[in-house]
Amino acid sequence: MNAEIIAVGSELLTPQRLDTNSLYLTNQLNALGIEVAMKTVVGDHRERLQAAVSGAVQRSEVVVITGGLGPTEDDLTREAVAAALGRDLLFSEEILDAIEQRFRRLARPMAAINRRQAYVITGAEVLPNPNGTAPGLWLEHDGTLLMMLPGPPREMKPLFDDHCLPRLQARLPRMVIRVRTLRVAGMPESEVDQRIAPVYTRYTNPVTTILAAPNDIQIHFRARCETEQEADALLEEVSAQVEPLLGERIYTRKDQPMESRVGELLSEAGKTVAVAESCTGGLIAQRLTAIPGSSTYFVGGFVTYQESAKTSWLGISPELIAAHTVVSEAVALAMAEAARAQSGADYALSTTGVAGPGGGTEQAPVGTVWIALASPQGSVARKYRFMGERERVRTLASQNALDLLRVELERISIALN
Amino acid sequence: MNAEIIAVGSELLTPQRLDTNSLYLTNQLNALGIEVAMKTVVGDHRERLQAAVSGAVQRSEVVVITGGLGPTEDDLTREAVAAALGRDLLFSEEILDAIEQRFRRLARPMAAINRRQAYVITGAEVLPNPNGTAPGLWLEHDGTLLMMLPGPPREMKPLFDDHCLPRLQARLPRMVIRVRTLRVAGMPESEVDQRIAPVYTRYTNPVTTILAAPNDIQIHFRARCETEQEADALLEEVSAQVEPLLGERIYTRKDQPMESRVGELLSEAGKTVAVAESCTGGLIAQRLTAIPGSSTYFVGGFVTYQESAKTSWLGISPELIAAHTVVSEAVALAMAEAARAQSGADYALSTTGVAGPGGGTEQAPVGTVWIALASPQGSVARKYRFMGERERVRTLASQNALDLLRVELERISIALN
Repeated sequence: MNAEIIAVGSELLTPQRLDTNSLYLTNQLNALGIEVAMKTVVGDHRERLQAAVSGAVQRSEVVVITGGLGPTEDDLTREAVAAALGRDLLFSEEILDAIEQRFRRLARPMAAINRRQAYVITGAEVLPNPNGTAPGLWLEHDGTLLMMLPGPPREMKPLFDDHCLPRLQARLPRMVIRVRTLRVAGMPESEVDQRIAPVYTRYTNPVTTILAAPNDIQIHFRARCETEQEADALLEEVSAQVEPLLGERIYTRKDQPMESRVGELLSEAGKTVAVAESCTGGLIAQRLTAIPGSSTYFVGGFVTYQESAKTSWLGISPELIAAHTVVSEAVALAMAEAARAQSGADYALSTTGVAGPGGGTEQAPVGTVWIALASPQGSVARKYRFMGERERVRTLASQNALDLLRVELERISIALN
Repeated sequence: MNAEIIAVGSELLTPQRLDTNSLYLTNQLNALGIEVAMKTVVGDHRERLQAAVSGAVQRSEVVVITGGLGPTEDDLTREAVAAALGRDLLFSEEILDAIEQRFRRLARPMAAINRRQAYVITGAEVLPNPNGTAPGLWLEHDGTLLMMLPGPPREMKPLFDDHCLPRLQARLPRMVIRVRTLRVAGMPESEVDQRIAPVYTRYTNPVTTILAAPNDIQIHFRARCETEQEADALLEEVSAQVEPLLGERIYTRKDQPMESRVGELLSEAGKTVAVAESCTGGLIAQRLTAIPGSSTYFVGGFVTYQESAKTSWLGISPELIAAHTVVSEAVALAMAEAARAQSGADYALSTTGVAGPGGGTEQAPVGTVWIALASPQGSVARKYRFMGERERVRTLASQNALDLLRVELERISIALN
């Protein structure tokens, strides 16, 4: 069963606002096994809205319309849907009563324009709205289930959950949706896809979605079956083929970011970490501490941005810097080792590089970053060259640093088990 | 002139993702006087995408399509648009060359599937993409201006700005749009609006938009006139009335975040800053260093997350912590003063608090944060209680810390001038 969501309101076509209701609705529909095939945002414009509704009703079995049920001239959903379906609008004394009662309860006078909200499309069921004046409407039309809900989330959500969900459920075969996620670092999206496409393209169930962020590829498998067992078996079948193709580049089998996975591995191993950051400027520390409970494994960090901070806080000798330059293997290693020594942590990560846009040299052009990891087993440093803007370079540096630690922790965990 | 935006990608139909590109595009189109009349999100589905494009081309004079230009089987924009317009796809050796060159520059092998990105719709102009493998395409079809851009914002934005904007501009009557921005911290949105609404509601030109983020209210005035002089005069007229109503709560008159304004003030004064962060975990350092050139005024920082880091790196005595608890005025002041002393910076900011969700006590419930500023004039500390989740508490703490320094720097700047 496919659904479409139409969000109505000219404010949703400005540079400031997005239709966020659709995220909630998608989540609820997906849980019933209904896929959202399309989303449309349309302004308070009678013809465009009517055309959008006509198209949706022809294409989809479920159409959810949010917004445009208010009392003003701009609120055109009732009229446009009635016109699109060739139905009439009838005035309902019952709804007017309910609206008048609401105003009395709030001890406020009802404006005359609120009468507009008492019109009902013929054949529609009225869904009472305890949190506002606009009731929702539910309608079945030529095999399409159509619901109109008010735009404010605190009115929309309970109306959908209390009235639309049970009606949808009653019309669906019982289906279960199960999701499995793999997240990958250290491999470009095109290579990930090339490796795993031969597997996932053979399956229409589960459905595979690949999401790419800088050095962070998310692979979602979604199985839809009659039972949990069936769905899990399908997911297992696909991931058993996909996982070996990506190997240790898979950093988690849950829907969690790198910093959360690193935290988990540190907690499991009972180990701690510290950082010494130059070009990432606190980003690694900030990511690690974004995770609740990180104070058990994150000791702290040094953001040694100027050279004086590197020399006086971490004891990096000016001679070492002069001999190797600040963006060098030697300085990265010295930073990580000093952070480890001073914090007493089991591990320490360091970064030194040129985030740009200025500061590049022939030897270390913009995007050059040295990352080091100091551990009980010794220290390693790696050189990277990241492309893109300052923010991207810093994000990539933090992701690669955390991944360096992640791989080390996983090796230890495997060796121990 | 009306525009439509079509965002392509099944990930945009999940409960996790929204099409945020359209906000940027809307802003740029609006600046040319082009209104966005409709937005559509469609999955990686050939027929639906083709139908969406056909509909848009019939309805609108400008159609912007983002996404679906990648190298994988899922990327169907080229094929679907060609089919919708009844045009062919031609293989371009030139584009293949550019893609191959890009991979060589990155010293990575090109996957065979990247060849897909070298197909061009007949009659389309190729828009070179310096930040990715997928070029953009520009096409005029039966009076509609149609552009296809890659989905990643860092590829989409420069392609739109450098290639689509000038082409659109050349086809429009000359109107000038001028924008003025005020950003406000330390006042809730409702109070900002209550104070300034009596002014801005009297004007339809400039248009006023208010955007609220945690302790960061943006007020945008946008004037559209035939000449720059006219537009600037209108903006001046409105802001001359609005600014006195908000006073020193206005932290900038440019479209810049707090960390950029603080950096500007430090640069102007020739002063430096350091940080000692506990609950913000590196976020203040990360924000300050997100600004290019920040190495001239940001010395560095201590992320003293565990108590041992506070005592050993900053010399906070365990007795002081025992006497006052770690979330206290005394510890915040000691942290800021130690960071200032150890860095040699003119100013130092510190934070210590409970970001949650765990760790709250009766004395310091979740959301309690002490922020201190050490300066040549002495030290001050302030206690805050922020509501909301961990991320919000940390964001608010960093924003208030930076604003504390901002106000201090502005007072000095006024005293000096």
